[in-house]
Amino acid sequence: MTINQELPYYAVIFTSTQTDSIAGYELMAQEMEALAKIQPGYLGMVSARSQVGITVSYWATLKDIAQWKLQADHSLAQQKGKSDWYEKYSVQICKVERSYGFDKELKEGK
Amino acid sequence: MTINQELPYYAVIFTSTQTDSIAGYELMAQEMEALAKIQPGYLGMVSARSQVGITVSYWATLKDIAQWKLQADHSLAQQKGKSDWYEKYSVQICKVERSYGFDKELKEGK
Repeated sequence: MTINQELPYYAVIFTSTQTDSIAGYELMAQEMEALAKIQPGYLGMVSARSQVGITVSYWATLKDIAQWKLQADHSLAQQKGKSDWYEKYSVQICKVERSYGFDKELKEGK
Repeated sequence: MTINQELPYYAVIFTSTQTDSIAGYELMAQEMEALAKIQPGYLGMVSARSQVGITVSYWATLKDIAQWKLQADHSLAQQKGKSDWYEKYSVQICKVERSYGFDKELKEGK
């Protein structure tokens, strides 16, 4: 997704493979997104799922990410453990150094 | 996905919304992935698509990413233009500063 923020900003790439026990997962995911949106430094979030799921969230600073992780871990702990839903997951915390894009609508001057 | 590489390494986050004209798209995507895998510095790639598509590719250095972009642009130019397939897309080039994960199989000692 396009992020309207001066470089550098930060991205958290969360990649996961789900188990068959996904009761409660969708609700948790919605709550996580709602919770993220009200965190300081939140810039945006995008998700897709095929065989694997990928969620990328964007943040102004590393401190914002650390704060968000504390909130998310706490909130998840009150629900089912992550390990119930995920066969495996990986997280990368990244500094966005360059960004560009294309938008057909803008290009065509609509 | 889990990347077995010392930090820092680099990630390219490609987020896209497709048009209705996706003839040839799947073939192109497969060719792009095959081409990426033989590039210097390629570390891995993961894709998922729901309403939006997200592809994250991982690379050892920024130079490897620049070289890959040259190859990909050239190859795409020989096929349909990106703009035929994509309503819009955005690209972020990122330095991965921290990485962690969970694997149920490893945790349970299987």
